[in-house]
Amino acid sequence: MKRWEVLDRECVADASPWLRLVREKIRLEDGRIVDDYYTIEEPDFAVVFAMTPLEEVVGIWHYKHGPGRINLGLPAGYVRAGEPPLDAARRELLEETGYTSGTWRHLGSFSVHGNRGCGKAHVFFARDVVKTGDPSPDDLEEIRVELLPLPALREHLAKGDVATLGAAAGMALGIASYMIDGVK
Amino acid sequence: MKRWEVLDRECVADASPWLRLVREKIRLEDGRIVDDYYTIEEPDFAVVFAMTPLEEVVGIWHYKHGPGRINLGLPAGYVRAGEPPLDAARRELLEETGYTSGTWRHLGSFSVHGNRGCGKAHVFFARDVVKTGDPSPDDLEEIRVELLPLPALREHLAKGDVATLGAAAGMALGIASYMIDGVK
Repeated sequence: MKRWEVLDRECVADASPWLRLVREKIRLEDGRIVDDYYTIEEPDFAVVFAMTPLEEVVGIWHYKHGPGRINLGLPAGYVRAGEPPLDAARRELLEETGYTSGTWRHLGSFSVHGNRGCGKAHVFFARDVVKTGDPSPDDLEEIRVELLPLPALREHLAKGDVATLGAAAGMALGIASYMIDGVK
Repeated sequence: MKRWEVLDRECVADASPWLRLVREKIRLEDGRIVDDYYTIEEPDFAVVFAMTPLEEVVGIWHYKHGPGRINLGLPAGYVRAGEPPLDAARRELLEETGYTSGTWRHLGSFSVHGNRGCGKAHVFFARDVVKTGDPSPDDLEEIRVELLPLPALREHLAKGDVATLGAAAGMALGIASYMIDGVK
């Protein structure tokens, strides 16, 4: 088993700074050539599973255009050029919810799209968060913050109220981490 | 809080049947107009958290071009036009691993990309899977199947051996479901 080899790449649609669609010529593991394998370059984003000292999770209700509906997510946003992902996570948690934390744990970094890339999702667990200000979201979203005890969060997940893969992964990784390791 | 309104849409790159990049003109919740919001149309895919009667998870080692490395994933693949997602999950589990199950549970369906779409990931839990044949993968991948007890799976997740958001979400949702509800 080995990596594919990229023999050539051509940008077929440039919507910088948001995304670039790139057509690649690939040599597969078995030597076959694929002339038109599409990859998508995008900025990374950070997503935060934030828990209060009372073990409530900081959820966000918002409209997301991917699923096209109002749904339950987690604080999240794009990582700026040169910004460490943890700094982006701290910044987005504060901007979107007004919460801060002194105790962070990295739960993993994952390509959003297994085949095409689409940037990475950096998932963090913020423990013992406290509200230190008011939200000041600066992007296109209207947001409603809701503190959710774990049973309520699981109920929303089971009911289909969580509509994006990044939020589902962040919640499930956070829940599994909490159940296995506890919050301390 | 309400949905955005799509005023116009234009395909700027057509790589059917794999993807279409679409530029939309959007009216936001607050009335502002965005002329160039990009969405990506792709087929849905199904991903399977499959567990044997001995409570081992059916993992897959493979190269994925999104992260660009060999990594640990789950059985998964595109849903064909008109195919119910559960049928795609059964088919991919059998094709990629040779395993089948009579007991399936839907853990959720999520837009791969919160902003741009990129199709949906349909996540399933297959219980008490048994090996009924040999793998016969028909796509671009070389695959090595490995049965993983839960502590080993969690260790791989913690070490960064899982490189895609779909696999991470499938594993974490499966682990959380197993821990909360048990396998029976």
